[in-house]
Amino acid sequence: MKHISSRDNPQYKQLVRLAGGRRGEQIVLEGVHLCQEWLRHRGLPAFALFDLQRLERDPELAALAAALPSGIAVSCETTLARRLSQVQESQGVYFAAQAPQEPLPELITGTSLWLDRVQDPGNMGTLLRTAAAAGIGQAFLSPGCAGAWSPKVLRSAQGAHFAMRLYENADLAALHARLRVPLLATALDDAQSLYEQPLPRECAWLMGNEGQGVGSDLQRLADRRVFIPQAAGVESLNVAAAAAICLFEHRRQLLV
Amino acid sequence: MKHISSRDNPQYKQLVRLAGGRRGEQIVLEGVHLCQEWLRHRGLPAFALFDLQRLERDPELAALAAALPSGIAVSCETTLARRLSQVQESQGVYFAAQAPQEPLPELITGTSLWLDRVQDPGNMGTLLRTAAAAGIGQAFLSPGCAGAWSPKVLRSAQGAHFAMRLYENADLAALHARLRVPLLATALDDAQSLYEQPLPRECAWLMGNEGQGVGSDLQRLADRRVFIPQAAGVESLNVAAAAAICLFEHRRQLLV
Repeated sequence: MKHISSRDNPQYKQLVRLAGGRRGEQIVLEGVHLCQEWLRHRGLPAFALFDLQRLERDPELAALAAALPSGIAVSCETTLARRLSQVQESQGVYFAAQAPQEPLPELITGTSLWLDRVQDPGNMGTLLRTAAAAGIGQAFLSPGCAGAWSPKVLRSAQGAHFAMRLYENADLAALHARLRVPLLATALDDAQSLYEQPLPRECAWLMGNEGQGVGSDLQRLADRRVFIPQAAGVESLNVAAAAAICLFEHRRQLLV
Repeated sequence: MKHISSRDNPQYKQLVRLAGGRRGEQIVLEGVHLCQEWLRHRGLPAFALFDLQRLERDPELAALAAALPSGIAVSCETTLARRLSQVQESQGVYFAAQAPQEPLPELITGTSLWLDRVQDPGNMGTLLRTAAAAGIGQAFLSPGCAGAWSPKVLRSAQGAHFAMRLYENADLAALHARLRVPLLATALDDAQSLYEQPLPRECAWLMGNEGQGVGSDLQRLADRRVFIPQAAGVESLNVAAAAAICLFEHRRQLLV
């Protein structure tokens, strides 16, 4: 296995750039669990970097390295691995890979999550994690959303990326023409209570930007606008909390 | 108004320490909205620091300064104010104050939120914001929880601190003796579905640490252990998402 001991190595420098949250086609995955999931669902990475000290004493890391063709796996000094880490305790492995880009479906059926300019990576990750837990298999993310494959989103989504199909930079207004189930938008005004009427069996859930909510052009396309009846005199819910309430009220109605 | 132009000013240095997230009796509040709420609900701060340039052109800041006795308000250079800021765009005002410490109630009635070692400040803030939106008026936070009055928690709670009574460093097991409504804990094993049986009209909702959930000693005290029925094969929900689902299912049952 090739070994990197200098910060100036081009492959290492590329990982540093990607770990810094640089957007684009290239992504970096950190940690045994994420890298295993990538391998299982997405195939080989462009290359993999292992902390040599960790690799030598951690059987899980060794098994991961053994599953990769020799040209792809590279080892490095612990100090270099730590410098890349986004978390306090580096997990000793990084994959560099191409961000998945799936062709948009011709028709959108089944339940889906639509996000309009959700900017905070923690919110985005929690939204995807919650949607996966609610059994939703697809999410459409508008331009202006946090990069779905950025390190922070990957970390807070806890593997949801591998349970769902994610479509980034999606023109939601244009996609609406392909939608074959009702579009439900959360809104504070001119909306009905989430609990007022039974929810459709399948639908697209549209959630919006942290400060501004769903844009008015998209609001107009919605078949139903719902609000979550909350206590008077307090701030509205965080978007990820609001989505959890809506998606699981939907799930509850399907289950009972 | 006294003016600070040096980083070595003791009052300024105190704010820098507090803004760094230092725990203890003293807290710092940033921004017009939080400071206004503090003044309305909690009275005068120990002292207030204003960005002089902002103060001179922002009528909201000027009104806030005018509401304070002259000895309490201090102005400073823009560079100093910016250096204190936790957010990209400093809002030009900081309050230093004593963290509220309320005596524990003799008997706990009504619905409440109990948090066992919730460590992430973003989760803590979202939990409080969601609880306030659900109409819950009190939260009991165990040792090991993120500091409720830390800058990050204040920011993500969006004013919930002023809609609720917060009891920090609460010994939850000991407090259970004062509880006069059922204790409901979220749990993954040996639990019943949230949707299986009607929820009590009033109860204490117990949520646990991000990685480990509710501690086993507290689990044993629970009158009911509930799980949220989620899709198979994906990670469990984030604690703030799980709380949103439980608290609003409770609210739904009260509303319908």
